[in-house]
Amino acid sequence: MQYFPAALQELTDHFARLPGIGGKTAQRLAFHVLSLPEGEAQAFAEAILDAKKAVHTCPVCQNLTDREICPICDDPGRDKSVICVVADPRDVIAMERSREFRGVYHVLHGVISPLNHITQEDIRIRELLSRVASGEVREIIMATNPDTEGEATAMYISRLLRPMEIKVTRLAYGVPVGSQLEYADEVTLSRALEGRREI
Amino acid sequence: MQYFPAALQELTDHFARLPGIGGKTAQRLAFHVLSLPEGEAQAFAEAILDAKKAVHTCPVCQNLTDREICPICDDPGRDKSVICVVADPRDVIAMERSREFRGVYHVLHGVISPLNHITQEDIRIRELLSRVASGEVREIIMATNPDTEGEATAMYISRLLRPMEIKVTRLAYGVPVGSQLEYADEVTLSRALEGRREI
Repeated sequence: MQYFPAALQELTDHFARLPGIGGKTAQRLAFHVLSLPEGEAQAFAEAILDAKKAVHTCPVCQNLTDREICPICDDPGRDKSVICVVADPRDVIAMERSREFRGVYHVLHGVISPLNHITQEDIRIRELLSRVASGEVREIIMATNPDTEGEATAMYISRLLRPMEIKVTRLAYGVPVGSQLEYADEVTLSRALEGRREI
Repeated sequence: MQYFPAALQELTDHFARLPGIGGKTAQRLAFHVLSLPEGEAQAFAEAILDAKKAVHTCPVCQNLTDREICPICDDPGRDKSVICVVADPRDVIAMERSREFRGVYHVLHGVISPLNHITQEDIRIRELLSRVASGEVREIIMATNPDTEGEATAMYISRLLRPMEIKVTRLAYGVPVGSQLEYADEVTLSRALEGRREI
């Protein structure tokens, strides 16, 4: 026999399809939604529809936005000749938090990952190339994650950019500020040593 | 400045309000919803509204249902003279899975918990008493969780039922089937010893 009312089961199934949400958690979330005040549940449902409807990618930098052009690309104070290339919209936020970078971004929406059948065609490299081809760009800063796929993607893009004769740089590797040397892995340490600077 | 489009932030906030979902997870879930096909996101939003609209508590046993009377109370094959009292609709499912119980249920929707300001007025004890008062009931099986609040609630209800002169029982305590004695805690073991039976 079916234990739950169909509508509750349906809602549980939807939660269970979200990444990292197992069956038990999905059940707990569905029960929680049932216990919400009417207006709150309605607002939740509308938030899903609104987000789907209003949010799209910026035609310039491919970051998520609900405006025609995203606020960063639209900001006359940002230096359009320096593009920081990141894999994910969340990485833009991480960079912005540092308050150091005054250029603009390019969001790839993924990295090249043969294991997951993601090729160079599936991420927004073509859009980056046509931005560079427009001529305004002086420097590209590769800021993909410092892991195998991030590195490979950065390497691939930098090779594509070589004939265009612009500066391509990579975020510095090293020991994180506030961390402890004894816990740093050997690859990070050797990169930190390699990249040492005079003080 | 605001990093995310407002609609995305709004959806993230809704996810973050769910129990056990932190800020980072809420963000990941909101991004996932954005990546869903249009129809899937729509179905998710509708599932929330449908569950809220269709699901209510059974007027007899207080379990969640989308029918007038829940399927268990409505089943002529179930023994209406034995009521198993549980704290939560999920406990009904756990009991049903055992396929042992042929009586009906009463869902309290919580336990008495002074720390969380939940008193006997906040859970559905009154509804249980009026079911018992109707005269049909022979036995009440207390099946609240074997923790302090579950025990206290079972004790409180059994005292209320005493003047009505019906049998009130409690689920047996003991070592779980398939478990290992060396990992059983001492309270469970002493209860198991206390409740030993001839074989």
